[in-house]
Amino acid sequence: MSGFHGLFIPGPTNMPCGVRQAMDIALEDQRAPDFPAFTLPLFHDLKKVFKTDKGQVFLFPGSGTGGWEAAITNTLSPGDRVLIAVFGQFLHLWADLCRRHGLIVDAVEVEWGEGVPVDVFEQRLRDDNRHTITAVLVCHNETATDVTSNVAAVRNALDAAAHPALLMVDGVSSIACIDFRMDEWGVDVAVCGSRKGFMLPTGLAIVAVSPKALETHRSAKCPRCYFDFADMVRTNKDGYFPYTPATNLMRGLRASLDMLLGEGLDNVFARHHRLAESARLAVKEWGLSLCAKEPKWHSDIVTAICVPKGSNSDDVVKIAYHRYRMSLGVGLSKVAGRVFRIGHIGDINEIMILQALAGCEMALRDVGIAVRPGSGVAAAQEYFRATAPRLQLDKVA
Amino acid sequence: MSGFHGLFIPGPTNMPCGVRQAMDIALEDQRAPDFPAFTLPLFHDLKKVFKTDKGQVFLFPGSGTGGWEAAITNTLSPGDRVLIAVFGQFLHLWADLCRRHGLIVDAVEVEWGEGVPVDVFEQRLRDDNRHTITAVLVCHNETATDVTSNVAAVRNALDAAAHPALLMVDGVSSIACIDFRMDEWGVDVAVCGSRKGFMLPTGLAIVAVSPKALETHRSAKCPRCYFDFADMVRTNKDGYFPYTPATNLMRGLRASLDMLLGEGLDNVFARHHRLAESARLAVKEWGLSLCAKEPKWHSDIVTAICVPKGSNSDDVVKIAYHRYRMSLGVGLSKVAGRVFRIGHIGDINEIMILQALAGCEMALRDVGIAVRPGSGVAAAQEYFRATAPRLQLDKVA
Amino acid sequence: MSGFHGLFIPGPTNMPCGVRQAMDIALEDQRAPDFPAFTLPLFHDLKKVFKTDKGQVFLFPGSGTGGWEAAITNTLSPGDRVLIAVFGQFLHLWADLCRRHGLIVDAVEVEWGEGVPVDVFEQRLRDDNRHTITAVLVCHNETATDVTSNVAAVRNALDAAAHPALLMVDGVSSIACIDFRMDEWGVDVAVCGSRKGFMLPTGLAIVAVSPKALETHRSAKCPRCYFDFADMVRTNKDGYFPYTPATNLMRGLRASLDMLLGEGLDNVFARHHRLAESARLAVKEWGLSLCAKEPKWHSDIVTAICVPKGSNSDDVVKIAYHRYRMSLGVGLSKVAGRVFRIGHIGDINEIMILQALAGCEMALRDVGIAVRPGSGVAAAQEYFRATAPRLQLDKVA
Amino acid sequence: MSGFHGLFIPGPTNMPCGVRQAMDIALEDQRAPDFPAFTLPLFHDLKKVFKTDKGQVFLFPGSGTGGWEAAITNTLSPGDRVLIAVFGQFLHLWADLCRRHGLIVDAVEVEWGEGVPVDVFEQRLRDDNRHTITAVLVCHNETATDVTSNVAAVRNALDAAAHPALLMVDGVSSIACIDFRMDEWGVDVAVCGSRKGFMLPTGLAIVAVSPKALETHRSAKCPRCYFDFADMVRTNKDGYFPYTPATNLMRGLRASLDMLLGEGLDNVFARHHRLAESARLAVKEWGLSLCAKEPKWHSDIVTAICVPKGSNSDDVVKIAYHRYRMSLGVGLSKVAGRVFRIGHIGDINEIMILQALAGCEMALRDVGIAVRPGSGVAAAQEYFRATAPRLQLDKVA
Repeated sequence: MSGFHGLFIPGPTNMPCGVRQAMDIALEDQRAPDFPAFTLPLFHDLKKVFKTDKGQVFLFPGSGTGGWEAAITNTLSPGDRVLIAVFGQFLHLWADLCRRHGLIVDAVEVEWGEGVPVDVFEQRLRDDNRHTITAVLVCHNETATDVTSNVAAVRNALDAAAHPALLMVDGVSSIACIDFRMDEWGVDVAVCGSRKGFMLPTGLAIVAVSPKALETHRSAKCPRCYFDFADMVRTNKDGYFPYTPATNLMRGLRASLDMLLGEGLDNVFARHHRLAESARLAVKEWGLSLCAKEPKWHSDIVTAICVPKGSNSDDVVKIAYHRYRMSLGVGLSKVAGRVFRIGHIGDINEIMILQALAGCEMALRDVGIAVRPGSGVAAAQEYFRATAPRLQLDKVA
Repeated sequence: MSGFHGLFIPGPTNMPCGVRQAMDIALEDQRAPDFPAFTLPLFHDLKKVFKTDKGQVFLFPGSGTGGWEAAITNTLSPGDRVLIAVFGQFLHLWADLCRRHGLIVDAVEVEWGEGVPVDVFEQRLRDDNRHTITAVLVCHNETATDVTSNVAAVRNALDAAAHPALLMVDGVSSIACIDFRMDEWGVDVAVCGSRKGFMLPTGLAIVAVSPKALETHRSAKCPRCYFDFADMVRTNKDGYFPYTPATNLMRGLRASLDMLLGEGLDNVFARHHRLAESARLAVKEWGLSLCAKEPKWHSDIVTAICVPKGSNSDDVVKIAYHRYRMSLGVGLSKVAGRVFRIGHIGDINEIMILQALAGCEMALRDVGIAVRPGSGVAAAQEYFRATAPRLQLDKVA
Repeated sequence: MSGFHGLFIPGPTNMPCGVRQAMDIALEDQRAPDFPAFTLPLFHDLKKVFKTDKGQVFLFPGSGTGGWEAAITNTLSPGDRVLIAVFGQFLHLWADLCRRHGLIVDAVEVEWGEGVPVDVFEQRLRDDNRHTITAVLVCHNETATDVTSNVAAVRNALDAAAHPALLMVDGVSSIACIDFRMDEWGVDVAVCGSRKGFMLPTGLAIVAVSPKALETHRSAKCPRCYFDFADMVRTNKDGYFPYTPATNLMRGLRASLDMLLGEGLDNVFARHHRLAESARLAVKEWGLSLCAKEPKWHSDIVTAICVPKGSNSDDVVKIAYHRYRMSLGVGLSKVAGRVFRIGHIGDINEIMILQALAGCEMALRDVGIAVRPGSGVAAAQEYFRATAPRLQLDKVA
Repeated sequence: MSGFHGLFIPGPTNMPCGVRQAMDIALEDQRAPDFPAFTLPLFHDLKKVFKTDKGQVFLFPGSGTGGWEAAITNTLSPGDRVLIAVFGQFLHLWADLCRRHGLIVDAVEVEWGEGVPVDVFEQRLRDDNRHTITAVLVCHNETATDVTSNVAAVRNALDAAAHPALLMVDGVSSIACIDFRMDEWGVDVAVCGSRKGFMLPTGLAIVAVSPKALETHRSAKCPRCYFDFADMVRTNKDGYFPYTPATNLMRGLRASLDMLLGEGLDNVFARHHRLAESARLAVKEWGLSLCAKEPKWHSDIVTAICVPKGSNSDDVVKIAYHRYRMSLGVGLSKVAGRVFRIGHIGDINEIMILQALAGCEMALRDVGIAVRPGSGVAAAQEYFRATAPRLQLDKVA
């Protein structure tokens, strides 16, 4: 099997060389005297990506799922009620995790392909005048579909209802890819992982916490130890950890932060948007539809594409993988067999998107879906040409 | 700061080149069709290291502390009673973790430097004729001191008392370094991590579980989700995971297993013993004492050395680090300032031990502890010379 | 600059992960007792790629140009006459190198885009009845144009003329990519490098030598030392070298050989042919012409594309580089500004070719060359679909 | 074979992690428009290490031997006379290389263990009033013995004799390790390689050339092409190369230069001196003698140790390698079997030296040489303790 395998799933992502290099080191002593000189600036810079001054960011060895568990168990008590809208596999799993920890889940079932129903949320919050809802859970970007929700609007709904519930956001696939503003949006707990926008291997649950959430933490009764905030607060302030941290991933995270902040977050977001836009243009050209029902839900992280009735999206993914050495995302759960997904997240550029689209066209045609060869590629090409910075040929080497 | 920094702590360890290389790859899709062809043999071979045929091994993204939490929450219910002997920082932390999860901890306080008091355990178990103790917790090797306990003897005590409690073992620093026999010793849950005997970065909690523990799991009421065995059982059987696994570490684990099984576990254990023995001979030559009170507790993983009254072991560690570029383990908690530790675990050999001893001698002398220069090194050298395989000069290139 | 930079030049090539890993090691002692256990099998397996049983392969730290120098200085004497056809930049340089070493160069000037004029060669050799020509120099694949010559036919010409001249072949870009048969074709010196078909960084001149050339070497009077065959013959037989070899590259070469021989040379050649064919189909669809004048010269290593009059091929390359993060080959020397080149050599696959073609289309359109967007991509896609192994969906995971 | 293999030969050296990482990248196009932005500062900073403002530094893919050939063939003509003192294997080889290129070699045979006989040189130069000697060749540090010669004194001898011969220096193992001053000492050609003080793999011949040597180059008649300065001069000025350069090594060289210049050359030299001094103290303590006859020849790069009559130094090296996983340098040529060598060059520190000494002591004793165990280690330890920067314990973490 020659050549590079194309990785076009919505995480793990294509890892930049500099990140890979930064992790390719000997192991180190997490109790070393100069370890804080590394960790304290890391914590500081991480806050920039979450856009929080007031909050605090914790790093747990774990996955995003662990981050969800940290968010819940540190701030809530068994019997607490949480409000969540379920319109994708990851929201389904988060709701399930809440139930397993003894929470009462007010799950608003929403059609897959739509996002957070802000009006419904606002009404529920207004109706809850006894404030039995202790937290509102939002998935910023549901990667199972390709739906991005409006977190700021949920904050507005909370404010409009004058409701004190905590606002918790699953930003696993969104943070460091699209705009996220923890302080401005009044987010209390934001959960992220290493393997999406941070372009690292799986292994870090990255959790940002507001002062309000930390305050709540004191009375929260969900049992916890591994993911306990208090142990982190106590040790992180000196640059250390309550148990062994994942130092190699943290060295990679340093490199990742340097890249993200070096490029500028706004540029990172614009890049993701532009690449996503090109994929959407290709899908349109193919005559296929997105999983996201309306443009307002469009995700700049992943494009989920519905195959025509009679076709099986799993076949597209299998053919892409085995015949053309390219990983696409399968449809999960409710949309299994009906949707395949192109991830365009992290360290990616125009020619990588074109590669993904070209591969998809072959796989689609192989399963009998009559897209015109090169058509999606052409749509993306022309969009890229129109939007790439102009090059003054006489000014470059 | 030139040259290689000496890493002589009891984990993280010196990572072999082949393990480092194996992890230095592009990220991959954990839902790929051929992923099980990688994971199923990995699970299979992991069982060999735990010496279990009947058990099952789980891999969680997390640290050893997460492994403790997995062990407890999957098999016990709030209010359950556990029996544990506390004689080191890691046992203290495990007991604390149990309490936070609502367990009643019968903690037998033992002097630091001793190991599991099997007789006391047996008496407690015999006295517990109503079987209120649901689990016995043992730390196979307490790295805070340098004490290895007799797990088989604890099993015998349980059997002698005809007590049905689960036997749980913290094998974080012992497994893959010294002999561990899950099935033969009737261990129900064995907790390990990636960063000790497996010579990998921190990031995998490796938990082996007996059929009895899995059966118990069904009725265990501690809330859990991230570390839930059931989700692993359901997905692992097909080679997949309930959420994103730490694929890069797993690729490194494959390389690590190949090395361990290639060398032969008995040879790995013999090597650890021989290197540890050389360190103990050096300490004797220095006129210092080990933290372990008796030879039967001697650890082949770490040597914890008491400094004379009036000296501060932290100064030894600081000087070694700053003046001689070498990491030693500090004394933790009760033995802080009184003990420093030399880790001799994982991918290590004779000349690395000599380097550690030579560095220690300088640091000891710098703090005013009158060891004779070269004395410990000489003791170890002569032991190595006496025990190294003979070389027939006329038969080698 | 995010994402992977596309490398589509005819060397250096895309390096496989396994080759990169194999070189990423600590340095080693080239006088180590077990070094020959590594080098002797390496020499042995290298011969398989050159398809020589009788010959010997030497590894010099250097580039392909050094290999040319080794070939010449070891076998010829100042004043010797060599016959060479010049139809590309690299042939021009090789002829120049010969002159600088005091040889008389019979250069047959051939239009760029054509290959070795076998008839002319045969006539010259027949006319040279006093055998003043001591060597015939052939470039198997001229990467400056995209012309592959028929080495076997040159051997036939020599035989037909019953001429004893040495046959020397520049196989720098051909060996390990297209079929090369040293013994069968009676090649006396074959020159290769590390950075083309062997998919390694620049740094090894790989020179295969026939017994006849080694015999000639004894009387050859060109001064030489660094590149002297005799020192290599003397030391290589025991697995050592006359001076420090490039051990890291040799470790990578081991990995490269394992891949090439594992895939099977015939499969490697077929893969290169298929990828090249797809690129040629794209060029045809674009309405552009190849530099190679006739199909018989078509190169499976590189596609050199002529831009229409009025356009500058350098602009295509600059735009591809700066606007779309993709390296193409420029036109060299006589074809500067008129030709750009797509390398499809080494570790490359279908989706990488599609990426290259898609990027070319954007750059071509940016400079005003009216190729239809997606058209070349489509031609290649349909060819790939028609020629990829069938996948039985019900038989794969 | 577990643990890290000790590399204590005088090159290749222990490669710093940052250098290894810098080379562990995808291959790149040496004709890329932004390649000069990398190469031009590299050339600039290289000159700092040679301490030349007026000279120019060339990078050839090759080894140090290639650098010798470049030095000779670019500046001399067949029949030219060179003056060289031979007192080691590498000087022997350089002289041999000169002869093979048609030069007349005035070889002053000097006992191995001594250095350049400056008085003899001065007399020869004074006697050569017709200036038939065109170049004086000096090996700054002969690694076969452990002898460093006084280059400045040779310059003084040339000046005292008012002789116009070129001064050529083999600085392969000295440059970047001990003080070298190209301009101040009037060196015309200085030859270095990648794998000693630059701490890189073998593969770069690094040659610095004075304006006078470049001027001479125009009339020098030794045939050359691969190593020709003129092609480099023509292309390097724009940041390019006449043929493919070894880009990965050059990326590593960038990292190496950053380290060397970051540490400060004077600090680099002082570090090498201190480590060498410790090794010499150990040898003294062992009751063995150095190969270098007098302190003025002592090398800070390598320590060559004579074994007592009746012992074979090769046995020491073999035992160290096979029994204790440690590479030492063998005795070469005239001192084969009588001398073994400890390299202390490049990225090395105190505890690495102690490791080397400890390993040597075991190997020496194994062959029956009665050094006291730990004695050399102790001598080095006490020297290190006395000379290490004081650490103020209350001022460090």
